[in-house]
Amino acid sequence: MRMVAATVAYDGTNFYGYQGQRNVRTVQGEFEKALQKIFKEKVLSHGAGRTDTGVHSYGQTIAFKVPNDNMTIQNIKDALNSVLPSDIYIRNLEQVEKNFNPRFMAKKRIYHYYLYTKKDPDIFLRNRVWWFPYDLDIDKMRKAARHFEGEKDFSSFKSGNDERNPVRQIDRVRIIRMSKNIILIRVEGVSFLRRMVRNIVGTLTKVGTGTWTPEIVREIIEAKDRSKAPASAPPEGLYFYKILF
Amino acid sequence: MRMVAATVAYDGTNFYGYQGQRNVRTVQGEFEKALQKIFKEKVLSHGAGRTDTGVHSYGQTIAFKVPNDNMTIQNIKDALNSVLPSDIYIRNLEQVEKNFNPRFMAKKRIYHYYLYTKKDPDIFLRNRVWWFPYDLDIDKMRKAARHFEGEKDFSSFKSGNDERNPVRQIDRVRIIRMSKNIILIRVEGVSFLRRMVRNIVGTLTKVGTGTWTPEIVREIIEAKDRSKAPASAPPEGLYFYKILF
Repeated sequence: MRMVAATVAYDGTNFYGYQGQRNVRTVQGEFEKALQKIFKEKVLSHGAGRTDTGVHSYGQTIAFKVPNDNMTIQNIKDALNSVLPSDIYIRNLEQVEKNFNPRFMAKKRIYHYYLYTKKDPDIFLRNRVWWFPYDLDIDKMRKAARHFEGEKDFSSFKSGNDERNPVRQIDRVRIIRMSKNIILIRVEGVSFLRRMVRNIVGTLTKVGTGTWTPEIVREIIEAKDRSKAPASAPPEGLYFYKILF
Repeated sequence: MRMVAATVAYDGTNFYGYQGQRNVRTVQGEFEKALQKIFKEKVLSHGAGRTDTGVHSYGQTIAFKVPNDNMTIQNIKDALNSVLPSDIYIRNLEQVEKNFNPRFMAKKRIYHYYLYTKKDPDIFLRNRVWWFPYDLDIDKMRKAARHFEGEKDFSSFKSGNDERNPVRQIDRVRIIRMSKNIILIRVEGVSFLRRMVRNIVGTLTKVGTGTWTPEIVREIIEAKDRSKAPASAPPEGLYFYKILF
């Protein structure tokens, strides 16, 4: 039996998140439906990370065992893409070691978050970016971003229902002006708590608008108290961009 | 009574075209629902042109009479945008002359058509561009485009059910490479037959891939026979971009 890893893009708008659940449309659910259609049997899949409702992916990695030996990797990729719905697409498929597990073997996860700062909304970018029509001070945001880097207790930046170890390693937070009205926040780390990236983005925008100073971020982290950090940024600006193994 | 003109953007994906029809979701239908909500009475609207199912707009102009005198133009714009669905947005609203009719007073209509030529599709651009994964010879397309310019009988490029005068004036057809994989075809004219822009784009791609020479376009126009031209380009790449009055 071959183990394969798929690099999967999806538009999160019409999914109740990545993880399979009964009675709602999820990425994993649709992916396993496609696997069943092609292989005529139930095939389990394993993703590198869960994404919430409305969150997109450019590089989610999904591994599964191929139950037959009579299709090439290219055949499998093409067959799956032909039956997957139009909001999921396998960008790459390759054979990997038999024990490959994307969740436990990911060495680095990279998220992208897009802000659109024009005064008027662009309906063609709705569900793709966070429309945040305010002037942002990029230099201040970069100063604030430094405080997130390193191994820290991110209790102030997790979702209330995430009971895992709150200590996480963030390698880098970059703020990049893509164009006059589009700002990209790129967050690189080993693994993340639920809602952590969106909570970091929410905090950075508070600094960008001048509501908070960059130094307050250090205090919020040290407080280890979710109530000290501002509301999460909305899901539509977030992309699970890339995973390094 | 004030007459006003709205410049309206919409994402055509989930509409059965612009023009109001019973029992289906149309742009005009949703727009008039919003008018009724704000003004508490039925208000008729007049658009500058019909767009087909799946075709987008950046600059459709819709005129209507304001049935009260107690709201400013800015109030009306904000109120309508707050009740319109998320795939319609009024970009501008201004008072115009009492006899303004966008359909009959338009001096120039500009359409944009986007082609995406990368080998792999981009799911975030689906419904926004035509994914056409082939190499295109831009110089040949530009040569072919010249044949469309001027006042001509466009019978070969109309929809079968359009019984209007087939003589139309096209001022300019430009082919612009926006980036490595995105090509914009910009068509400027006074008025257009149904499906005319999409039929022109379909023909230009046949030239771009080398299937036809640029000179064949002149022969197709002269034939005045719809069966001589190729299939229409799909609706998702087309934008009703701008109207000059």
